[in-house]
Formats: sequence, C-alpha cells, structure tokens
Amino acid sequence: MIDDDTIKLAHELAEASGAVIRRHFRQPFDIEQKGDDSPVTVADRGAEREIRAILGERRPDDGIVGEEYGAERPDAELVWVIDPIDGTRSFVIGRPVFGTLISLLANGTPVLGVIDQPIIGERWVGAAGHPTRFNDKPVRVRACAGLEKAHLATTSPHQFAVADRATVFDLGEAAASMVYGDDCYNYAGLASGWIDGVVEDGLKLHDFAALEPVVTGAGGIMTDWRGNPLNAQSAGDVLACGDKRLHEIVMRRLGRA
Amino acid sequence: MIDDDTIKLAHELAEASGAVIRRHFRQPFDIEQKGDDSPVTVADRGAEREIRAILGERRPDDGIVGEEYGAERPDAELVWVIDPIDGTRSFVIGRPVFGTLISLLANGTPVLGVIDQPIIGERWVGAAGHPTRFNDKPVRVRACAGLEKAHLATTSPHQFAVADRATVFDLGEAAASMVYGDDCYNYAGLASGWIDGVVEDGLKLHDFAALEPVVTGAGGIMTDWRGNPLNAQSAGDVLACGDKRLHEIVMRRLGRA
Repeated sequence: MIDDDTIKLAHELAEASGAVIRRHFRQPFDIEQKGDDSPVTVADRGAEREIRAILGERRPDDGIVGEEYGAERPDAELVWVIDPIDGTRSFVIGRPVFGTLISLLANGTPVLGVIDQPIIGERWVGAAGHPTRFNDKPVRVRACAGLEKAHLATTSPHQFAVADRATVFDLGEAAASMVYGDDCYNYAGLASGWIDGVVEDGLKLHDFAALEPVVTGAGGIMTDWRGNPLNAQSAGDVLACGDKRLHEIVMRRLGRA
Repeated sequence: MIDDDTIKLAHELAEASGAVIRRHFRQPFDIEQKGDDSPVTVADRGAEREIRAILGERRPDDGIVGEEYGAERPDAELVWVIDPIDGTRSFVIGRPVFGTLISLLANGTPVLGVIDQPIIGERWVGAAGHPTRFNDKPVRVRACAGLEKAHLATTSPHQFAVADRATVFDLGEAAASMVYGDDCYNYAGLASGWIDGVVEDGLKLHDFAALEPVVTGAGGIMTDWRGNPLNAQSAGDVLACGDKRLHEIVMRRLGRA
C-alpha cells in the first residue's frame, strides 16, 4: 500500500516535468540521436533534471534510474524510474500523445506508476493498494473476451523483430482493430476502458515500469509475452489486456507462452 | 481565390460537427463495421448530418459527398466533400488525434480544406489564394532536403499492399524517424512545419480532399506516388512533403514514378 505522501510527491514530479516540456513543445530544438538510435532533446533532459532535483531533496535515500542521466543508488530498496518523455519521436513531430513516465520500484517490482500527458493535461496514477485514477477519478478496464471484438494498439512495426512484425500484423487483421502509434498513451487508454489490449516489444525498464501499476490498478493484466510478471529483469516484450481471457488468447497467438 | 464567406462557412461546419463529436468522445457507443470493413459510430453519422443540414440551407445548389451518407448533386460545379471523423479507429479508442475533414471541390479539384480536431481544439484551414491557418495563425512547412534528416509519418501498415509495406518500412529505417498512427493529424503537422513528409495508400476522396489545400497553402506539395496532382479521380496513394526536394527523393524510393 503506497502512502498518500508518496502519491502526492509523484504528482509534484509530474507537475515539474510537465512545465519544462510545455515550454519546448512545437518549438525549434536540436534532436540528438543516442547510441541506441533513439532521439533526445533539451525537453527530455530538462524534464528529467527537474524530477531528479526534487527527488534528491525529498527522497535522498531512494535510488533513481532515468533514461537520460543514468542510475544513482540503483540497489536501494526503493528506486524511482523515470522516462521524461516516452514517445520522443511523437514529441518531436508535435503530437500531443507522448507521456512522462514516473515509477517507483520496491525491490525491483513496480508499485507506483504515473503516465502524464502535459500538453492535453491528462494524468493517470496507479499505486499498489489504490484504484488507478485518471485526472483524480478512478478508472477501470473493460471486459473483452474475444479477439474479434478487441480493439488493440501498438506503437510501431519498427519495434519488432521481422517474424514478430508479421505475427502482430496478423493479430491486427484478426482483431476488431489494431491502431498503431502513441507509446504509453495506449496503456493509459487501456486503464480507462477505451482499449482492450496493447502488445509491444523492445521496451526498457523506464518504458514499462510506470505502465504496469496503472494497468493493474485499473483491473488489467500486464506481463511479458510468456505471462511472467514484469520487473527490473524483464526483457522488454510486453502484453497488457483489460480482460484476462483476451490476454490468454493473444499470448497463444504471440507464440512464446 | 476562395471568398471570406465560404471560409467562414467552413468554420461554422467544423463548429457544428465538433459539438456532436465532443458529446460522444470516450462515451459508450456501438461500433458498426461497414462493407469496406471500416468502422462507423453515432458520432460519425451525427457529425455528418449536422454538416449536411447547414449546407442544405446555406448552399442548396452545391453538391455534397459524405463518407456516411453518400452523394447529392455530385456533378455540381462546387461539391463539398466530408469525412466527419477521419481516424474513426482512433476516435473509438479514445485518442484525441482524429480529425473532421471538410473540403470544397471546384470542378473536381480541392480548393478548400479544413482539418478540425474538436477535442484538443485545433483547426487548420487551407484555401486557394490564402495561407493555411492553424487556429487563425498562418503556418508554413519547413525545409528538409535529405531523407536522413526527415521526420516522416504514416498511419498503419494495414493500409498498404504487402510489397509497399516493406518499401514504407525501409523508408522509415532510412529516415530520421517514421512515426505511425494518427491519420489526418499528420498532414496538419506537416503544414505547421513539425513533420517533413507523410506517405499513405488506400485513401478515398473524402480522406485526402481536405488535406491537399491545407498542405499546399502552407507551401508544401501533395500528390499521388507518381507525382500527379490529386483530384476526384485519384486512386488513393498519396505523398505529402514540406520540401519539394524530399518529395522527389521519397517518390523515387516508392518506385512508381
């Protein structure tokens, strides 16, 4: 059970990072390609610095692992995992459907997650022992027992290995719909009961750590493609569904379970 | 040169359709699959009915071609072409990046286009003889001479034939980025100078008619994959770029020119 002070702190972190990001959105900035070919901007860096500054003051004993500035005390019992802009490629082209991801891990397991969209002004918070909230109102996944009725989402074919790209494409053909794009925003939509499933690969800890508490706190399930719980050691293949029956069906089609 | 009264009318149509769409967004509704396997909801139909009612009163001699309710006087000199929700799949999953498309064709050629996003409150209007405006401020495409610097977008691999899917995927690997998703919103981003190119296939007249005036009015170029201007007879393959040099490069890679 996450205490209210920690949840309040998570909101403060999102407020601070959002203020930085709003200043840069749709403004000219340089885009740097990192070693893994993912882009980074002054907004990603500035937002993460804000979050780290607040945590350094308020939670000096906790660890921090951030996408842009690496790890401090990663072996602490409590570790904050930060992706200042999940969906930098969307941010770069002026799409307001990226998100700031803030999560807290207790002994390697995600126990709190924030998905913050600072342009539209939307925030989802999932915390162990609490229902997931969207702009402070509790939300809930919806039931969906069959693939042919399921509305699915994934970000990009570029995140999958060749064979999986075809598998995910065929999954989309069998579903009611498969919509591409929009990174973490899809998991937020799943928690709110607008989307039935999200399938992705190639995610890093800072990409998925905040998503799991948001999804499970709304009654959903989020695992790797084999059905294993997600933690700091997970490989990066993820499957989130609002309905456990759909999760089973999609797992079978993905063929790794 | 489109007169101011016609531009004002286009804004009124977008206001009226947006009011309908906002009432239904993220609310429960039935989703019907049409003959072409595309989805339709009460919001699509209600929005188009509002637009038709206003046009019927104010422009009784003009033709109307709408995605949901078909054609009236399609042989008139002036024909309004309406897609009440472009990106119904996104609308259905609660993503605020679909758009209402309103266009006017003069003898089969698009001369006015509106891309309206009624949830975020964003509207792009392109009209022959006027610069494209985004929320009433003029916008302009940006220069981008080389593919390796280009940020590209497309909606979904499901819209392409098998061979083209691979071509578009490879194009994405060669570009600075290829972001999937978001339908008409990408062309709006291109007109605003946030995106360098958009490549798609399988579009219908109501999908592309409003986009062309928005793109060209901002200094961009939008043709089919062979470089032909778009009109009522176009097949549905489209390529929009902010920079003519990039347009040439991408056309060569698409291999139909």
